[in-house]
Amino acid sequence: MPGTDTYLCLRPFVDELVRCGLRDACTSPGSRSTPLALTFAWEPRVRATSHLDERCAAFFGLGLAKATGVPAALVCTSGTAAANYAPAVHEAYEARVPLIVLTADRPPELREIGAGQTINQTGLFGSAAKWFFEVDDFPASPGRVRWLRQLACRAFWTALDGRPGPVHLNFSFREPLIPDGESGVPEDDVVPGRADARPWVVRPRAPRLPADELIDSLRDQIKRAARPVIVAGRSERDPRLGAALDAFAERVAIPLLADPLSGARRGPAAVAHYDALLRSSEFAEAHVPDLVLRVGDLPTSKPLRAWLASSGAEQISFDAETAWQDPDGSVGTIVSTNVRSTLAALGSVMGKKRGDRSWLEGWHAADRAAAGAIATALGDELNEPRVSAELGSVLPDSAVMVVASSMPVRDVETFFPARPSSFRVLSNRGANGIDGTVSTAFGVAAAGHGPTVLLIGDVALAHDVGGLIAAGRLGLKLVIVLIDNDGGGIFNFLPSAGQGQPFVDHIATPHGLDFAHAADLYGLGWERVADVPAFRDALSRALTADRTTIICVRTSRDDNVALHRRVWESVRAAT
Amino acid sequence: MPGTDTYLCLRPFVDELVRCGLRDACTSPGSRSTPLALTFAWEPRVRATSHLDERCAAFFGLGLAKATGVPAALVCTSGTAAANYAPAVHEAYEARVPLIVLTADRPPELREIGAGQTINQTGLFGSAAKWFFEVDDFPASPGRVRWLRQLACRAFWTALDGRPGPVHLNFSFREPLIPDGESGVPEDDVVPGRADARPWVVRPRAPRLPADELIDSLRDQIKRAARPVIVAGRSERDPRLGAALDAFAERVAIPLLADPLSGARRGPAAVAHYDALLRSSEFAEAHVPDLVLRVGDLPTSKPLRAWLASSGAEQISFDAETAWQDPDGSVGTIVSTNVRSTLAALGSVMGKKRGDRSWLEGWHAADRAAAGAIATALGDELNEPRVSAELGSVLPDSAVMVVASSMPVRDVETFFPARPSSFRVLSNRGANGIDGTVSTAFGVAAAGHGPTVLLIGDVALAHDVGGLIAAGRLGLKLVIVLIDNDGGGIFNFLPSAGQGQPFVDHIATPHGLDFAHAADLYGLGWERVADVPAFRDALSRALTADRTTIICVRTSRDDNVALHRRVWESVRAAT
Repeated sequence: MPGTDTYLCLRPFVDELVRCGLRDACTSPGSRSTPLALTFAWEPRVRATSHLDERCAAFFGLGLAKATGVPAALVCTSGTAAANYAPAVHEAYEARVPLIVLTADRPPELREIGAGQTINQTGLFGSAAKWFFEVDDFPASPGRVRWLRQLACRAFWTALDGRPGPVHLNFSFREPLIPDGESGVPEDDVVPGRADARPWVVRPRAPRLPADELIDSLRDQIKRAARPVIVAGRSERDPRLGAALDAFAERVAIPLLADPLSGARRGPAAVAHYDALLRSSEFAEAHVPDLVLRVGDLPTSKPLRAWLASSGAEQISFDAETAWQDPDGSVGTIVSTNVRSTLAALGSVMGKKRGDRSWLEGWHAADRAAAGAIATALGDELNEPRVSAELGSVLPDSAVMVVASSMPVRDVETFFPARPSSFRVLSNRGANGIDGTVSTAFGVAAAGHGPTVLLIGDVALAHDVGGLIAAGRLGLKLVIVLIDNDGGGIFNFLPSAGQGQPFVDHIATPHGLDFAHAADLYGLGWERVADVPAFRDALSRALTADRTTIICVRTSRDDNVALHRRVWESVRAAT
Repeated sequence: MPGTDTYLCLRPFVDELVRCGLRDACTSPGSRSTPLALTFAWEPRVRATSHLDERCAAFFGLGLAKATGVPAALVCTSGTAAANYAPAVHEAYEARVPLIVLTADRPPELREIGAGQTINQTGLFGSAAKWFFEVDDFPASPGRVRWLRQLACRAFWTALDGRPGPVHLNFSFREPLIPDGESGVPEDDVVPGRADARPWVVRPRAPRLPADELIDSLRDQIKRAARPVIVAGRSERDPRLGAALDAFAERVAIPLLADPLSGARRGPAAVAHYDALLRSSEFAEAHVPDLVLRVGDLPTSKPLRAWLASSGAEQISFDAETAWQDPDGSVGTIVSTNVRSTLAALGSVMGKKRGDRSWLEGWHAADRAAAGAIATALGDELNEPRVSAELGSVLPDSAVMVVASSMPVRDVETFFPARPSSFRVLSNRGANGIDGTVSTAFGVAAAGHGPTVLLIGDVALAHDVGGLIAAGRLGLKLVIVLIDNDGGGIFNFLPSAGQGQPFVDHIATPHGLDFAHAADLYGLGWERVADVPAFRDALSRALTADRTTIICVRTSRDDNVALHRRVWESVRAAT
């Protein structure tokens, strides 16, 4: 088969992805993937970024898709290259982020036979791929090209449909891997796309909407409730949901316990410091709800989770993406309709239901008391909680923040204030890994939605240190706020911290790295700061700098545990 | 269930792995994996090394198992942590390296339900795991403990049996994850192990031996052949096979085309420069064999592969591990018996069969001519081929060399001389990836068989740059010879190199990194050398230094292609 045929097949395939809405492809170097890489590189409507490490590439694509809601394509060569996608593909599946994973493979006669650079790529990601499909190698007949146009649309819409996630197409390629002759690929397509830039198959939006009976029943439940709460967790798909939730909660005077990842920690209804408040058993017992409306993922907060599980309240989960976020088995109703449409319908039938605002005001008074107690307990020093509190206060509305798992996401949940109009906060909370965090943040930065700030710990940075190469190779800018406590600080909170040297060696894992050298290696700015004014100044410089900067804050794991415990005790005493 | 029960179950499990022969466990930080990590850390007969990045951990374990032939254990927490093992697990499957992969998981009631840090780990590695088994969480009854002793033996022997490879056991753990109370785990085992340190289940060695009829038939085939050759490729399991092969080949006067990865490029029978020789079509046609005996993996050399495929010769593959290394479908007989036993039996029935040594001598004359032509073409400068040739000449017999895939493994195949007594050369040639190369080399170094030297290119180093942390955290020493040509030099040999900027951006992928900063980040020595005497001096210093050193040789990708072509032309002209 002439090499040109491969390209006559792939160009319409990529054309259809673009017509559906795809704008980004992340390639990694290799030979077998040449037809895919060149086709994307030649397509002017696609930004094709190059990544040496496929694990970084996949997390970068995940970050892009997370920020934009549009699937990104990943392109790699055969063999373990593809296996390096596994961590991000699993995260994408769990977090419900759409990806189009395109792996090059050898054809059947060169598999499992010592031909080199070959593993079993069939179903490589198991249940983490929503759809796996094996694409063979065949001349560019009209039937073939028409099928590839259809296939591209199917891949794209499948990634987005219902519960979004990664789809995986495995392409066999035989040599030659470049077009034949000097003249390149003919300009005319074997089968042109449809008129008016329409995709071969369009998929008009079809949100699931609530039936009137459902709305009436929800209204009645809410009206009956004396102590309802809304719990809002990570919800990245609909950037307008957070404000809608907050407006709804305020209108019906229901306390809104909002994780920053929900976009709903805004006010006037939002309660910011529920994690600290609910650590007080007196407060938790005095505030047991009788109805819980859950939106988005379950927040990380352990005291919140325990309080919900023991409340005995009727719990209704708004779960349009089949996320089943309920490890304690407390939810009794799953509402699978579009959340914003459902809130709008509910708002219009409820009127201003709850004249009595005392329940909401009680929560707000406690939240204010908690905020004051936290501020006092943190004092003037620059410590881990203070870094989160500062970022929550001083970043501009236009910023996008990426928060690493482990301690940063918990500190952001505990210490971020509510802000009337706030920036977007994203995090890899599908599987809560620390892997690929740097690359995810660069992918978010590549979306170009605003200055992008990454809050990360030293172990997560060491894990994805190679991801820093995106700053120079792709000319992307990130503000990296590094909390360096030389190890996994979260583990110092756990019972295993009493296990002596084996705990230190295998769980805390101090490493002694000085990341200033990483800044040199990857051509980044570097600032080490030790107090709050210096942190603010450095942040302000980094936000306006023309390159990526790491702002390093050194802390102590032991001191940090003690400080958190003092904060919780202060909040308990204040409420 | 008390936390202590978990430990009363795991200690006998680890005890059995040790009784079977396991000596190394590679842990990564996490909470759910605490019982496994602490049990290995407490076991004095195991060296438990800690690795921040699970991808590095898995390649480190692969390197250890590759060097020792003994399975290493990998221990990680739940979620994407486990998915980071995928590249090394696939490489281990393809390269047939035994590994015991132990992943911690949440129990069923905390899976797929928003409990955090959970992915579907059941069958996570698909067909790349020889055996997958789900281990639940249950009190330490005598029946349970006896079963875990048996299970550990089964996992260990399964990893080694037949075609060696990785086995994967997925352990559910419920809280508490540490032993209860102050007193720790009771010293007495619920079910003690067998007397005399025997494993619960021993598996006496049972090599497949050739029947007399097979030996007679092979003898007759060899006697009938006028132009037989032996082709020896990667064979890491039996370190004594290389010398046995060479002795056999010399005795029966058969040219031995030996990849350095075979351990058989020794002499007097070995032909070192077959790759360069067979690029001459005149030479290839004048030396068509009538019988090919293949041992180990098929070497990388493209001209060798093409020559074998077009020869029409009877080809016999000695394939005791079911490797099926035959992408051209040339092999007509697969001999599945133990190779060294088979050679010994064959040697004893053959006597000194071939009085006529002219066929062998013709190959040796050509090999000497090729060596001379190569030396002349390379001149006095320090270039990529010269680095390989130097290493092949000057490293001590006690050294162990790890060679990266891509250009290094090809240059080693082309330019290494034959040496009567040579050092061991290892490479990740199961799937030929460049990923995990640094970590693999540190794993090999950890085996402690001799000074360990890694030959690696800049893209492979950038891909596994985080693996360098093993130097400081684990106190391991490696001599890293870095060929830095700012990109993937192998691709400049391919037709896609004519594709302009898209080739540069997405396939060659220059990055401009100065790895001197990586040396600073990870506390390594650094030398940049530009000529042969400086290279020799730096190598000699690095071999006796007390820490890991990177010796950097800067080259040009374009010049390197031109140089290789000049070498091939010189060899053609000289033979």
